[in-house]
Amino acid sequence: MSGIVYLVGAGPGATDLLTLRAARLLESADIVFYDALVPDEVLLLSRNSIKFKVGKRSGRHSTAQNFINKRLADAARKHQVVVRLKGGDPMLFGRAHEEIAYLKEQRIRVEIVPGVTAALAAAAELGVSLTRRGLSRSVVFLTPRAGAGERPNEWARAALAADTVAIYMGAGEAGEISRALIAAGKPAATPAVIIENASLPERRAFHGVLAELERTAARSSGGPVLILLGEVYREAAASQIIAPWPNEHSSSLPMARAIRTGRARSSSS
Amino acid sequence: MSGIVYLVGAGPGATDLLTLRAARLLESADIVFYDALVPDEVLLLSRNSIKFKVGKRSGRHSTAQNFINKRLADAARKHQVVVRLKGGDPMLFGRAHEEIAYLKEQRIRVEIVPGVTAALAAAAELGVSLTRRGLSRSVVFLTPRAGAGERPNEWARAALAADTVAIYMGAGEAGEISRALIAAGKPAATPAVIIENASLPERRAFHGVLAELERTAARSSGGPVLILLGEVYREAAASQIIAPWPNEHSSSLPMARAIRTGRARSSSS
Repeated sequence: MSGIVYLVGAGPGATDLLTLRAARLLESADIVFYDALVPDEVLLLSRNSIKFKVGKRSGRHSTAQNFINKRLADAARKHQVVVRLKGGDPMLFGRAHEEIAYLKEQRIRVEIVPGVTAALAAAAELGVSLTRRGLSRSVVFLTPRAGAGERPNEWARAALAADTVAIYMGAGEAGEISRALIAAGKPAATPAVIIENASLPERRAFHGVLAELERTAARSSGGPVLILLGEVYREAAASQIIAPWPNEHSSSLPMARAIRTGRARSSSS
Repeated sequence: MSGIVYLVGAGPGATDLLTLRAARLLESADIVFYDALVPDEVLLLSRNSIKFKVGKRSGRHSTAQNFINKRLADAARKHQVVVRLKGGDPMLFGRAHEEIAYLKEQRIRVEIVPGVTAALAAAAELGVSLTRRGLSRSVVFLTPRAGAGERPNEWARAALAADTVAIYMGAGEAGEISRALIAAGKPAATPAVIIENASLPERRAFHGVLAELERTAARSSGGPVLILLGEVYREAAASQIIAPWPNEHSSSLPMARAIRTGRARSSSS
């Protein structure tokens, strides 16, 4: 009888934004396969497991999905608790479908543990709600990034119709995104915020408008980036930098302190 | 000097889907104001705080938002750690904007702690990713519910343009939603899933198509409901009921057990 593979959302990056369920699964995991974007501090929660980086980071070296699928299945045949740790939430741009489908086909049990997705962490830090009565009743999460052989999609139409837009994995294409949306009819003056490293100490926010998205994105320094668009950001445009987190209160919480003083033991594949 | 008001996402309902940060803030809170939808088990994490229910539950008795705002400000003038606990994530349909704006005006410091929103918990339990390569690259989260004096919004257009749709607070209006979307051009045969009580032991999933949404919704029994639409649900339509969670593995985790055997001490306002 094989073990269970848990696809676990690691959240946006800050260790204390993991769920209690995710933290407990990491503690009890026999083996952990993690993405490149999962910070070392998160892996500290899983002191006794074997750890493998199988990260796909957009535009960099990536382990083929088929190879990851096979490794998960092999691990479940040897171990009881296999954790596949993914940045953010596994069911939003996490390519969970491929892994779930393969493991089910292999008759291996899969459970999914949801996580805090980057757009929610970014909204929390900006202090600007994604929805607002009378101004925004719909939020679309989308990516313009297409895999090889994928149908041309209608992401621009979805971005046009929703009140607030969160664009994942669009950092390298800010210019194209801006031009495509303006051509499709989105006002050039739509307020835009680019959030880099949401939830991490080195996070930053850059405010601008849709027409200047490429220039605004160029100010970021290579961390994971989220693009937010919509009228809800009009007032927030004044503040250029997000206040540091954790603040005095949360940094005194014992858990956060314990994690910061530790060291990750992890091996890469 | 006044304390800090933390707007904290309680997650979808299961206690162990709170973030570590949320759990620690609940532990150290002096006073907690919570929504009607936050389960008693979550409040157990905040044993030593004063607790007040200020819940707005759609269609039922609701405490006016202005009154909640004032109570939060008053609490911050007396206490160091004030927690405003909201179901799901505070920045998605949580009316956080009103509270943040009021507290900032009163020069009271506000921090927001993101949470796992219901759609992510529902996706995890269904085992169906909201996004999928070649099939869904955009997900819209929306509500058709309009407050008094709100502009007529274009939720149907947003639902039409996105690949996957998650409709919050639409349970009582499933018939209207179905008719409006079909009239706007969404195919009547679009796969639909209605999830009731996502992440809780009593959760259920009802599968159907957009044209039968009203009939499908009528099978739910009054718990909070999320409507999911999109091609990603086509294959999942076979399974009618979600498998129970927590499973054998997670139910043996000490935290989950401790919480289940406890009792909430909470006072209502």
